Amino acid sequence: MAVYTEIGDDELRAFTALYDLGEVLACKGIAEGVENSNYLLTTARGNFILTLYEKRVARGDLPFFIALMDHLAHQGVACPVPVRATDGEALRELCGRPAAIVTFLNGMWPRRIEPHHCGALGEALARLHLAGASFGLARPNDLGPAGWRRLCERCGAGAGAVQTGLADELAAELAFLETAWPRDLPCGVIHADLFPDNVFFRDHELSGLIDFYFACTDFLAYDIAICLNAWCFEPDASFNVTKARLLVARYRAVRPLAAAELAALPLLARGSALRFLLTRLYDWLHRTEGALVQPKDPLEYVRKLRFHRGITGPEAYGIDR
Amino acid sequence: MAVYTEIGDDELRAFTALYDLGEVLACKGIAEGVENSNYLLTTARGNFILTLYEKRVARGDLPFFIALMDHLAHQGVACPVPVRATDGEALRELCGRPAAIVTFLNGMWPRRIEPHHCGALGEALARLHLAGASFGLARPNDLGPAGWRRLCERCGAGAGAVQTGLADELAAELAFLETAWPRDLPCGVIHADLFPDNVFFRDHELSGLIDFYFACTDFLAYDIAICLNAWCFEPDASFNVTKARLLVARYRAVRPLAAAELAALPLLARGSALRFLLTRLYDWLHRTEGALVQPKDPLEYVRKLRFHRGITGPEAYGIDR
Repeated sequence: MAVYTEIGDDELRAFTALYDLGEVLACKGIAEGVENSNYLLTTARGNFILTLYEKRVARGDLPFFIALMDHLAHQGVACPVPVRATDGEALRELCGRPAAIVTFLNGMWPRRIEPHHCGALGEALARLHLAGASFGLARPNDLGPAGWRRLCERCGAGAGAVQTGLADELAAELAFLETAWPRDLPCGVIHADLFPDNVFFRDHELSGLIDFYFACTDFLAYDIAICLNAWCFEPDASFNVTKARLLVARYRAVRPLAAAELAALPLLARGSALRFLLTRLYDWLHRTEGALVQPKDPLEYVRKLRFHRGITGPEAYGIDR
Repeated sequence: MAVYTEIGDDELRAFTALYDLGEVLACKGIAEGVENSNYLLTTARGNFILTLYEKRVARGDLPFFIALMDHLAHQGVACPVPVRATDGEALRELCGRPAAIVTFLNGMWPRRIEPHHCGALGEALARLHLAGASFGLARPNDLGPAGWRRLCERCGAGAGAVQTGLADELAAELAFLETAWPRDLPCGVIHADLFPDNVFFRDHELSGLIDFYFACTDFLAYDIAICLNAWCFEPDASFNVTKARLLVARYRAVRPLAAAELAALPLLARGSALRFLLTRLYDWLHRTEGALVQPKDPLEYVRKLRFHRGITGPEAYGIDR
């Protein structure tokens, strides 16, 4: 949860007057998103989401994110659509922060993942990748191998305090991945953070994807690996091959996977596990008393990383070559 | 802000199926209310508020609060109306907690208080008191003088740690108020927590009152005293007599005040300041690391208490006898 910024009456009035939204009927901070302040804005024209971008999102990246949502929506992807003010600008400033209003997506993210959720996710992910192919902008993944190295160095000996031997294990994993990381898989726009709380459903139907603030240009199959980690482990840390098989099968029905992408999945899953392990570890070591955001447990991803290290081919995930 | 409880998919589906609300389109935790978990529930029939009552609200009091909102709404007070399930029950259980759905009130609470807000508040408060006169239930104010004594004892020497000499000052104030507290002022249902975040406006028009979870039976003029404290001090701790005068004048235009009520205002304001001072002090001394709710500064109400101690009659508040 995160609401950081209190918006003043006059500021909100002046801001919303720039849009053609009718009277503002309510504006409530919502417990959604971790990096930014989000408000559910109810106007005479319905519900919208107002986001103030807090300091963890680089200002220079915002035009990429806004243009991407705009592009994807026009390609038929169900995602928040940036609302333009009457002057045509969607990215503005409010309370000294970059701010944007986007459309409200109906649906709820699933608290208990069932196999059908994973199937629908796979199909939506493939459609997202196809829709992104015609997007004109690029953004390097700053949480790729070079970013992992930087994060690892900033965590320093702290890893050892979380679990004995973890610092050495991370150093070895990082060294291995830096040499073994693929170089020539199909690339494009990836979401890069498609956890369950970013995927909305209405009953069994996937109704939309949100939170594109980690989106970047990287291997498309890396997005699948992120989803295998985020959706296919059970709360007891066991890996559910039924979910993984459905996720990848529905993906491939929309966008076929090359043999090299399939073969790289265990490696990409290791990299993805290391990426979330490191950001969680960093947040854990730098958590502050009284913070509104509870840091997530880094050890969950230590267990996932170790699981993938024992995998040699996609068959072990339940995925056919 | 407060969202404490995560609602599971199946639980929410089973719960909302008991109501005639149509499809649930969204359910988002909102940063509103301190004592309970509140969710903005969007259904095919519009926006609603779903509240889970956390442990600070006594279960035995909930029928009083629900019946009161129902009564007031039927008397024309703009307040949340409890929504009944198809079996006629408004108070149910969800995630092991008492739960209710109420109607959504349009409007926003004022972040910067202007005199016109105080005038509209005074009128709405008087209408609330008149509407409450025909309400059949009663609830003693457990945050009256006897409650202050209990709170003061549970804070113990902690007051001295917040400000040198504060423990002695509170003991003396409590002893004075226990003997001087009025006994025979007009009584009725009071809101007892009408702070700005519980009063919604659409532009200059007061659009509703929320959060009746401290409502009780007490001196009607005590509610005015609470509002004087919550609405008429400036951020620099100075008292704004223009606001107080407007608040009380608009109140009296709807419900005339007896001479005894006017004369008692400084005393009631001292009691009200002590009440919020003590609950804030208690929360401050018992705050826990990582809590989602930031405790409010008790010293704000120490300053207000001292201000009222120097007042002998309502004229000093800008109020005519």
